[in-house]
Amino acid sequence: MIKVTVMYPYTEGARFDHAYYRDRHMPMVKSRLGSACAYYTVEKGVAGRAPGSPPAFVAMGAFICESAEAYEAAIQQHRPEILADIANYTDIAPVLQLSEVVVERSDR
Amino acid sequence: MIKVTVMYPYTEGARFDHAYYRDRHMPMVKSRLGSACAYYTVEKGVAGRAPGSPPAFVAMGAFICESAEAYEAAIQQHRPEILADIANYTDIAPVLQLSEVVVERSDR
Repeated sequence: MIKVTVMYPYTEGARFDHAYYRDRHMPMVKSRLGSACAYYTVEKGVAGRAPGSPPAFVAMGAFICESAEAYEAAIQQHRPEILADIANYTDIAPVLQLSEVVVERSDR
Repeated sequence: MIKVTVMYPYTEGARFDHAYYRDRHMPMVKSRLGSACAYYTVEKGVAGRAPGSPPAFVAMGAFICESAEAYEAAIQQHRPEILADIANYTDIAPVLQLSEVVVERSDR
């Protein structure tokens, strides 16, 4: 199982519409990925190590998928639509990484 | 619900023992957090946006907790022990952030 994590670095004065990201963008990407993606997660950055300090990332989204191959095959033809939607909620360029899921959740 | 994400930036030549992190460090932290932490997740960085490029983070761990207050109260007295254990698996200084869980998992 793999995870594709999309991270939006905190940037002073940058724009990020958390409601659009949660209600429109992430469900759209999930629908394009179809069965290649089991589920996704969304979080909103609150603080860094020190309370009140800015978080490293203002938002993070992750897609938990069966395999990197399944993810790539599913997203390929939808990439232009997905990338074009980013401007609707932010002007931050996201950092993306592919990870291997080592512990999906420790209580299962 | 909040998430405390601990991210280890990819560093050329750095050391990271994924087995120790999975089998020793993360279960130890969870046991110290007790009921303040519902569960944790662990992932291993594979690649950045381009296949074969280094990931932003060589590993990430996250603790999903009831509240920031519960997490802080639980971890406070164990912080020296937890910080001292880091040298046992890596020489990378982790980046930590507190997030609000917006979508815990989209299929629930």
